[in-house]
Amino acid sequence: MSPVRSSPAVSETGDPLLLTPGPLTTSKSVKSAMLHDWGSRDADFLAINRTVLTRLPEIVNGAGEYVAVPMQGSGTFAVEAMLTSFVPPQGGVLLLVNGAYGKRAKRILDTAKRRVVVLETAEDTPPAPDAVDRILGDAPGLTHVFVVHCETTSGIRNPIEQVAEVAARHGRSLLIDAMSSLGALPIDAAALGCDAVAASSNKCIEGVPGLGFVVCRRDALAATPGNATTVVLDLHDQWQVLESTGQFRFTPPIHVIVAFHQALMEFFAEGGVAGRGARYAGNCRTLIEGMRALGFRTLLPDALQAPIIVTFHMPAEPNFRFQAFYDGLKDRGFIIYPGKLTVAESFRIGCIGRLDPTDIGAALAAVREVLETLGVGLPLARAA
Amino acid sequence: MSPVRSSPAVSETGDPLLLTPGPLTTSKSVKSAMLHDWGSRDADFLAINRTVLTRLPEIVNGAGEYVAVPMQGSGTFAVEAMLTSFVPPQGGVLLLVNGAYGKRAKRILDTAKRRVVVLETAEDTPPAPDAVDRILGDAPGLTHVFVVHCETTSGIRNPIEQVAEVAARHGRSLLIDAMSSLGALPIDAAALGCDAVAASSNKCIEGVPGLGFVVCRRDALAATPGNATTVVLDLHDQWQVLESTGQFRFTPPIHVIVAFHQALMEFFAEGGVAGRGARYAGNCRTLIEGMRALGFRTLLPDALQAPIIVTFHMPAEPNFRFQAFYDGLKDRGFIIYPGKLTVAESFRIGCIGRLDPTDIGAALAAVREVLETLGVGLPLARAA
Repeated sequence: MSPVRSSPAVSETGDPLLLTPGPLTTSKSVKSAMLHDWGSRDADFLAINRTVLTRLPEIVNGAGEYVAVPMQGSGTFAVEAMLTSFVPPQGGVLLLVNGAYGKRAKRILDTAKRRVVVLETAEDTPPAPDAVDRILGDAPGLTHVFVVHCETTSGIRNPIEQVAEVAARHGRSLLIDAMSSLGALPIDAAALGCDAVAASSNKCIEGVPGLGFVVCRRDALAATPGNATTVVLDLHDQWQVLESTGQFRFTPPIHVIVAFHQALMEFFAEGGVAGRGARYAGNCRTLIEGMRALGFRTLLPDALQAPIIVTFHMPAEPNFRFQAFYDGLKDRGFIIYPGKLTVAESFRIGCIGRLDPTDIGAALAAVREVLETLGVGLPLARAA
Repeated sequence: MSPVRSSPAVSETGDPLLLTPGPLTTSKSVKSAMLHDWGSRDADFLAINRTVLTRLPEIVNGAGEYVAVPMQGSGTFAVEAMLTSFVPPQGGVLLLVNGAYGKRAKRILDTAKRRVVVLETAEDTPPAPDAVDRILGDAPGLTHVFVVHCETTSGIRNPIEQVAEVAARHGRSLLIDAMSSLGALPIDAAALGCDAVAASSNKCIEGVPGLGFVVCRRDALAATPGNATTVVLDLHDQWQVLESTGQFRFTPPIHVIVAFHQALMEFFAEGGVAGRGARYAGNCRTLIEGMRALGFRTLLPDALQAPIIVTFHMPAEPNFRFQAFYDGLKDRGFIIYPGKLTVAESFRIGCIGRLDPTDIGAALAAVREVLETLGVGLPLARAA
């Protein structure tokens, strides 16, 4: 029986829907903001940039005490800028690792010749606050703690509140990679007392890629001059020049920033973290329920699942081939994401971007259709 | 007498014309390419990116022997990546400095703790090959020579061919910052025998800002693993991962790259370096002749002037105020650029971007109009 083939899903601009962890589907109005050119040192662009930098700290309850420092490049550029600018040569970092992004931070700090102690847990296991407590108690030389809020490797939500409490008790500085959570999950930087939170333009604020940023506690950032190991990734210098002149030191990605400004306005119009987080949570719930009904198994229990991206075990059915599954979904207008787990065959489906539960419902219909095309019996009997 | 006020000049998308050294006015088709979203790991985007990387070396006669390595961020990110990846910890660099971009390279190398010897000349004076020869003869520890092709500080064209000849004679590696010249001035990397040429998306290829790149001699790049001082700016690693997987290590600025692809196609359609260089040369000639007719004086003699950006001495007329001049030109649709000279008051007008001599003629009419509005008598009697 050949299943009925629906017409492909498309975004407002006729593109496949990106069920990826970012870069993601953005609104047409965000992309349309890029249809102009601006002078990088002209007042019109600088005013747009100033608005972006002023409003970013609000998202993490940091208005007043925190400043946003943009970093050209991508989220990883912002993370490397944060780590190399905040951790002094004589400092040391306790890295909480349960996925690729924690490991990447280790590589960054090793390259910068900073002392590192790693607390690694399995990809489906958050760090235990007790273990953090013991390590910090035994190692007074560890000046900083680094944690990834939502590890995109698995989609797990790590307990930044508990980690912050332990770090504060030991008087250590906390650095957070909130790349894929900022804007969707509540982060109260002031309450956490963290020194810095890194994220990027192309995640839950729904801008286009090309800009990272670090929301920094002003006092902590002010203590970092001379730490950085490069010129371009020196957050303190970037901040100082922006503060004193309103201008970037080096050419900013103007179009990306103007699109990010539009995305920020749409983010606040949707109700900020509460509104956007609720939409993503609805997407995630619809996705997981629908996939489970087809017989797929999630890597994570619901209690650990962030509403950003969901990891599914690869089905063990002999007729299931991932590339054909991916291509079939793409033909139907949905781009999904390969797995990144080290421990099991998996794939991932994102819940973020300009998508709502109706889009997720259409994606689930396409998943069913493609599985039927592949001759995979439903519900799956043998999710690995 | 109140001069007649013409209607403001606008680009295809209704924006002021950017008479700046980049970011610059781009075509509507280049910006329109950004009206879509792509998956960063999906085949469609990766194919576009591959085309960009394949075609970039052609611009510097490097097809075959050279590879292009993209670097997220901006031109300076590419320059810092080039310097920190190519110059090993035990290496040393002779820096030829006659402007801000040469000085920036010194700061980058100082931060990276690489040994540097500076040959500095005045901002209107190119380095003398004899002096380069003497220094290299006396300092066998200098493994590399760094030169800025067109110093945007002044607009001067530095003699990379003569520098390359001297460097080759001494067996030293040559690194070129061709940020504002690549695409407009001939660069024959193969004939120069240089190791690397750095540039960016938003200069003479007429893309939007957000991407730098380095065209590297494959053999030279292959010898650089382990040199880099950071993860994100490690050109060798960036190259290896792109070569082996076709994918970026870290999120690429997708929209910027797709726009850059469109800009490259338009660049080749215009006749490549010959066609584009001729248009810019026409812009530059029209600009200089027109400004001189008004009484302005250029910093540089014509023989040293690159057709990229022209530095003019600030008029000394008492009624001339730069901010009012800038604002008056902006009201008429032209954004010019402040000066960056350390030795004299100046301002700059760029010749690059989606502009032709007719646009420059309109800009000259606006300059005349604004000067009359300010009550500055013409021709100027007292260019400083």
